[in-house]
Amino acid sequence: MPHTHTKAVVHRLSRAIGHLQAIRDMVEDDRDCCEVLTQLAAVKSAINGISREVLKDHIEHCVADAVREGDAKALEDLSNALDRFMK
Amino acid sequence: MPHTHTKAVVHRLSRAIGHLQAIRDMVEDDRDCCEVLTQLAAVKSAINGISREVLKDHIEHCVADAVREGDAKALEDLSNALDRFMK
Amino acid sequence: MPHTHTKAVVHRLSRAIGHLQAIRDMVEDDRDCCEVLTQLAAVKSAINGISREVLKDHIEHCVADAVREGDAKALEDLSNALDRFMK
Amino acid sequence: MPHTHTKAVVHRLSRAIGHLQAIRDMVEDDRDCCEVLTQLAAVKSAINGISREVLKDHIEHCVADAVREGDAKALEDLSNALDRFMK
Repeated sequence: MPHTHTKAVVHRLSRAIGHLQAIRDMVEDDRDCCEVLTQLAAVKSAINGISREVLKDHIEHCVADAVREGDAKALEDLSNALDRFMK
Repeated sequence: MPHTHTKAVVHRLSRAIGHLQAIRDMVEDDRDCCEVLTQLAAVKSAINGISREVLKDHIEHCVADAVREGDAKALEDLSNALDRFMK
Repeated sequence: MPHTHTKAVVHRLSRAIGHLQAIRDMVEDDRDCCEVLTQLAAVKSAINGISREVLKDHIEHCVADAVREGDAKALEDLSNALDRFMK
Repeated sequence: MPHTHTKAVVHRLSRAIGHLQAIRDMVEDDRDCCEVLTQLAAVKSAINGISREVLKDHIEHCVADAVREGDAKALEDLSNALDRFMK
């Protein structure tokens, strides 16, 4: 089913991609390592934020709908995905 | 000064960028959220790995060059501990 | 309702507490910082593992039961807890 | 050599230990899983904060003492970047 936040998530992914491309340029230009590290930390934080948005949307829509229709598989999939995510 | 691992870091960044672009396609195609989350976790882990490589290179080369005397052992230990810590 | 993994979780928490007490002793004895950092990383990893166990148990039992009984609040609570956890 | 922040670190470790003991009580009392997860996230964050303090102290004192010449700037930058990175 369509997700309410698809557009926002795609937009945030595009920004993260642009950010990584800028970091690649910095590395190629042999820029200061500490600055590269700080920018990598920012991208990691952005990806974490995107994950939280995807997860929130998933639980409040997909999982809720699936469980209402008696599909317990959705919870098992969620549990496994979270387990991998938190490794 | 030039870094020994620049090529490897640029290559890993390019792969992470390609991975994020594939995830954006998945989101646009409204693919399963759990799969999206799992792929985002993989990219986050890749960025963490790249950060560790940059950091290791930085400490072992840039910072070591700033240390004037032969006592590089303290920095080597720091480098190893950080590497483990940030896993 | 009672949780299947309570005993295992309590046991793992007790080990993490003992580990932190040992680290406190290390700091008081002014032991090597890198070793302290490595041990702190191990405890952080242990707490992450405990969180994953609690979460897995929660989703597969409490949330599944609650949703079956038409309680959508359980999913909202889970979503909020995860959001805080991933910050 | 003695560390300037030993007392503060020991104090923070004691608080984290007390926090984990309270969480163990919650689990034994079969308290709400989401609340347990939120508290575990708080302890994980506290341990991360302690690690950062230990690391900062280490780099600024132990490692700095190993640097024989006046060029401490590189290590200061490293310390700041790590502090941001490990947030």
